[in-house]
Amino acid sequence: MCSAYDHNKCTTVSEILARLGDKWTILIIMQLGESPLRFSELKRAVVGISQRMLTLTLRALERDGIVKRTVYPTVPPRVEYSLTELGISFSQPVKGIGSWVFQNHAEIHAARADFDLRNGEVEDSKLIRIS
Amino acid sequence: MCSAYDHNKCTTVSEILARLGDKWTILIIMQLGESPLRFSELKRAVVGISQRMLTLTLRALERDGIVKRTVYPTVPPRVEYSLTELGISFSQPVKGIGSWVFQNHAEIHAARADFDLRNGEVEDSKLIRIS
Repeated sequence: MCSAYDHNKCTTVSEILARLGDKWTILIIMQLGESPLRFSELKRAVVGISQRMLTLTLRALERDGIVKRTVYPTVPPRVEYSLTELGISFSQPVKGIGSWVFQNHAEIHAARADFDLRNGEVEDSKLIRIS
Repeated sequence: MCSAYDHNKCTTVSEILARLGDKWTILIIMQLGESPLRFSELKRAVVGISQRMLTLTLRALERDGIVKRTVYPTVPPRVEYSLTELGISFSQPVKGIGSWVFQNHAEIHAARADFDLRNGEVEDSKLIRIS
């Protein structure tokens, strides 16, 4: 996939993955994939996100051409965020990741508890061997 | 998806997304989805990753139950990394994200250039209005 021949391309792709793989990005895209939302609606929907992080993430997604910001000339002006055509296309694999995590988080937690237990035991046996 | 009613569940899912959405995680899973690999092979395949970051990411993935570390009792011992059953299931949506980025990175770059140009213009017009 990433050979030495296309190192530049891979660096580019890594950087985009780093941006788009961000948890807030994924949660925001999952929400906007359902319907366009205003800032305050989005903030309520993405539990735990701060005002500042939502602002920054939306701006980065707008810059990436994934999210569109529409200002309606009402009084006061209404601002709505929606997915662009590129964003709708991206929301498909993003929903895949999100749904998988929702379905499997219990199994991941079980694996972590098991790993920590096993590693705790390894630490103990090392202590015994050392003493 | 994330209502106030299941805030704890969403915090959990967010945390897992943050871990698994990481760019190195995605690139490592994409590689191991093709075949099991030794540490050095994986390091060559995931262009740009440091020894330390590969070690840390593999250990985190092992803890999550996504990656399995197998030690073969040869001299010297051969250590191989592969996806677990949970990891194989996760590699499907991950491949979806990775492939999408590979296919659309040019379009994202074009969107960014366009956004920066437009925002540069906005800054200029503000300057003119102020003066």
